[in-house]
Amino acid sequence: MSKFSRIVIVGVGLMGGSLGLAVKRHGLADVVLGVDRDPNNLAVAFSRGLIDATAETVEEAVKTGIGNELYVVATPVSRIGEIVRRTTRAAKNSGDRRILITDLGSTKETVCSEINSEAFSRNCRYIGSHPITGGERSGPEHANADLYRNSLTVLTPTEAAREIDLAVLIRFWRSLESRVLCMEPSEHDRILARTSHLPHLISVLLARGLAPEDVPFIGPGFRSTTRLAGGEANLWRDIVSSNREAILAAIRTHETGLRELRQNLENRDWDRVTSLLETARRNRNEIE
Amino acid sequence: MSKFSRIVIVGVGLMGGSLGLAVKRHGLADVVLGVDRDPNNLAVAFSRGLIDATAETVEEAVKTGIGNELYVVATPVSRIGEIVRRTTRAAKNSGDRRILITDLGSTKETVCSEINSEAFSRNCRYIGSHPITGGERSGPEHANADLYRNSLTVLTPTEAAREIDLAVLIRFWRSLESRVLCMEPSEHDRILARTSHLPHLISVLLARGLAPEDVPFIGPGFRSTTRLAGGEANLWRDIVSSNREAILAAIRTHETGLRELRQNLENRDWDRVTSLLETARRNRNEIE
Repeated sequence: MSKFSRIVIVGVGLMGGSLGLAVKRHGLADVVLGVDRDPNNLAVAFSRGLIDATAETVEEAVKTGIGNELYVVATPVSRIGEIVRRTTRAAKNSGDRRILITDLGSTKETVCSEINSEAFSRNCRYIGSHPITGGERSGPEHANADLYRNSLTVLTPTEAAREIDLAVLIRFWRSLESRVLCMEPSEHDRILARTSHLPHLISVLLARGLAPEDVPFIGPGFRSTTRLAGGEANLWRDIVSSNREAILAAIRTHETGLRELRQNLENRDWDRVTSLLETARRNRNEIE
Repeated sequence: MSKFSRIVIVGVGLMGGSLGLAVKRHGLADVVLGVDRDPNNLAVAFSRGLIDATAETVEEAVKTGIGNELYVVATPVSRIGEIVRRTTRAAKNSGDRRILITDLGSTKETVCSEINSEAFSRNCRYIGSHPITGGERSGPEHANADLYRNSLTVLTPTEAAREIDLAVLIRFWRSLESRVLCMEPSEHDRILARTSHLPHLISVLLARGLAPEDVPFIGPGFRSTTRLAGGEANLWRDIVSSNREAILAAIRTHETGLRELRQNLENRDWDRVTSLLETARRNRNEIE
């Protein structure tokens, strides 16, 4: 099986819309169905050719299903559990169908444990995905077929996952030219707290601290450091609340680093400041 | 006077080299002379056409001067005072000439007070400039004729400055398509501590905190937040040490914000977190 008869994308914003475009470009499905409770998102996604057909609810989508499908939940993380539960219930009520579901959520432990304990059943074959990519602009109007290319997608199969489903998902992401890595949801969340959630919140603090009278003095440095702060507030409230513990640990480590830096300035310890600048530069040059 | 007979650029790295290119493109001087103690920088700048001629020292440059000149010191901030003093001495010894000098330094109070008290004389007509622009890559090989276009240049004339020199410098920067604003050196430094130096140090702390095992999980967000950390360590040690007080104040404010954010997470106060995310987003969208 290298092609799905249908891929259902729930939430056709930047991530979901870009996925539709990429799936169509790579010919991974006969039909891409977009589901969104926002009719405007659906209209934009359809008119831009990101999806082939539309539905307003997952229940409506399940009704028209024909087997060999993949559901991808591309909503904010706080809604993923609910969507998976509703899809599972609809599948059960619709001839006891079994549906393979994944998501694009930026945090995995809360969602995976919620689905494991409440919703995982023979009708619901859920395995979490997190493609590490994105853009600061949201909405299907900014969809981009290359969003997943050369990215890394982390899969977080739990004990209940079946090997065959995992193999199908790995092939799916590889077909979109993404590398794939499997790991525990909690490990994923601890790493992403450091590499994504903390930088986001730091960017937010810097942007929040901008006084109106300082605006004319903004240069390219402030712009790139605060780029992330342009992200949607609700989306990030969800991410932060669903990964609270790991983010708190990352914040505490950052607070320690900041205190040390302040003390070095207070003590005029320019050797330590230089050594910090040098280590940071070496680290940064390694990821370029 | 709309054209200089010669513009002498001391330090032909990214900033100085780009200035040479821009000056030549706008036809602001008959000759652009590059001075650098690094022969490699001089060779690259000359072969790339950023400068028309080279000299190894300012003393050598002054000797060949013919009047109606502008000296621009584009070295790290810790060397600006020394260069201005040496240029002044050479001008005095060379037929008591008078030379208009500016610089491109990112901090202004330390340099301006040093020059005022020690070196300002009838031979040295110095007014500080800070064009707020830059790039994360250093060296004349990354010079870019558009670096100063649409930027803001802050001029920090002290009491000793003459109106006519200020007028000449304002016209010079405007000819390079930069806006110009005049203000006190200390006010400049306080603002830049918030809009440039703090973001730089925060970017450095994030990059320093990157563990090797986290590297594969880096996405576009971490990349843009830590872009500044790729800057040269010595350059930034100078900036930090020459603006210590203002940067300390900015760090302390940031520490307070970080502590409040941590407490909001500890207390699961998602309303406050959301409000922070929204304010940051509004601020960020205003500078785009």
